[in-house]
Amino acid sequence: MPTLVECVPNFSEGRNKDVVDAIVVAMKVDGVWLLDREMDSDHNRSVITLIGDRQAIAEAAIRGVGKAAELIDLTRHQGAHPRMGAADVVPFIPIEGVTLEDCVAISIHVAEEIWKRYKIPTYLYEAAARLPERQNLENIRRGQFEGLRDEIALPARRPDFGEPRVHPTAGATVVGARKPLIAYNVFLNTPDVDIAKKVAKAVRASSGGLRFVKGAGFSVRGLAQVSMNLTDFEQTPIARVFEYVKREAARYGVLPLSSEIVGLIPRKALEQAAEWFLQIENFDSSLVLENRL
Amino acid sequence: MPTLVECVPNFSEGRNKDVVDAIVVAMKVDGVWLLDREMDSDHNRSVITLIGDRQAIAEAAIRGVGKAAELIDLTRHQGAHPRMGAADVVPFIPIEGVTLEDCVAISIHVAEEIWKRYKIPTYLYEAAARLPERQNLENIRRGQFEGLRDEIALPARRPDFGEPRVHPTAGATVVGARKPLIAYNVFLNTPDVDIAKKVAKAVRASSGGLRFVKGAGFSVRGLAQVSMNLTDFEQTPIARVFEYVKREAARYGVLPLSSEIVGLIPRKALEQAAEWFLQIENFDSSLVLENRL
Repeated sequence: MPTLVECVPNFSEGRNKDVVDAIVVAMKVDGVWLLDREMDSDHNRSVITLIGDRQAIAEAAIRGVGKAAELIDLTRHQGAHPRMGAADVVPFIPIEGVTLEDCVAISIHVAEEIWKRYKIPTYLYEAAARLPERQNLENIRRGQFEGLRDEIALPARRPDFGEPRVHPTAGATVVGARKPLIAYNVFLNTPDVDIAKKVAKAVRASSGGLRFVKGAGFSVRGLAQVSMNLTDFEQTPIARVFEYVKREAARYGVLPLSSEIVGLIPRKALEQAAEWFLQIENFDSSLVLENRL
Repeated sequence: MPTLVECVPNFSEGRNKDVVDAIVVAMKVDGVWLLDREMDSDHNRSVITLIGDRQAIAEAAIRGVGKAAELIDLTRHQGAHPRMGAADVVPFIPIEGVTLEDCVAISIHVAEEIWKRYKIPTYLYEAAARLPERQNLENIRRGQFEGLRDEIALPARRPDFGEPRVHPTAGATVVGARKPLIAYNVFLNTPDVDIAKKVAKAVRASSGGLRFVKGAGFSVRGLAQVSMNLTDFEQTPIARVFEYVKREAARYGVLPLSSEIVGLIPRKALEQAAEWFLQIENFDSSLVLENRL
């Protein structure tokens, strides 16, 4: 079994396709696959999804940050999305054969190399954070590039690697590790968005619901939609989330009409769901024929 | 995406490990993986599970049949399991990127080559059968090696490939194509085996139940067990089978306690189950992160 780490770097360029192409090319490393790339011109930001073994993906990320620093000038960058670096955030996500702790180790290596090779100061966030307040990206990015440029020498804002001054055009980069996130929406058989809001409030951790669920209610295609992020599907599995939403909706006389996965879902999350609903007592991923290859 | 075909040849040797080892070695072909091997000394039979791309697996199967003919002498073979060939049956099963019809084509090629290379007459069965009565293996194998030796010249028993006389020591071989089979058991929270028998009768096709389910009730570990074979999980999916068993058991005031997969399950069957229970409207295997590799 190869180890698989996902990396989803966000770059502060969402309009010039040539720039994003060049960054993607720079990240071509043996053992790394490009899964997805998205550009958003309003946000003026692009999100690249890569997967690969641990050494290869670390090197790909470092090179991508270097190429972004070459091609993106934050002093001339405008967009709706907050940013503080040409390569803004670089999260590493364990997929197979690696732990979250392994991804923390990768983050530290990558953050250190970015400073050494390109003189871009770096911060560690989420599971890689060395200070509790740096677990939350927004605390690190407060004031964005322009604000950080003024405040980086303050003790609370000193980078984890590098000297306390931003790179003149590439700013600073945030590197870290987190679990895979599943974006999961459930449509209810009602147009009444208030019910979706009530169900979302019941299911999300912030108001007493399930520990690793974020949620909100929306009206989508004329239907009430409970929109959720599952931030740790191993501890709060998708099957339980669905059943919880179903039960809470029933309280209002409403049923799930359908659900949708936005983006990608790790295979393990689906296998867990099948195992749970079918009550398979002897489940093990080695029972799956294709996993024997 | 590579094409994946499974092949599960059954050989008439379940006691002498050296013989089975030699057959397995003979089937080593680039692009073919050994998934499983089982020897049964009572049956005096072994079952090898291979997977690989279509050309490679066809060649592996042919070579395995040749090696079995070299090492197994049916005139001296005894065992509980019916058999008519040193290599007795060779089914091909579509797993990924191939259809059942492709596996029929593979069967025809393999059956023809076995005759050409080793002068072993061959029969086509299941989806590859050219005569309706040959869909069922037991019709072809009636009388076993000894009976076929006497009757093979009769019009009804003529082989699909080769002359109408058995190979003196290797008999004849049956080759064919079938869908993947899932062996799936549900334990009920009762020791009353009669309830398992009633539920099995309700769920199986032969007594009016679901089209691609075979089933029987047993007592296992002191619990009533509904033991099933799902012979076409795409048309009769495992989620519906489970819900059907659950509903029928409830009729007797009983619930599923757990279920078990015996052997291997194709990934698609699990993905389908997760999709069904979670009501995912936009499901497509490309949503699964690992399937992007």
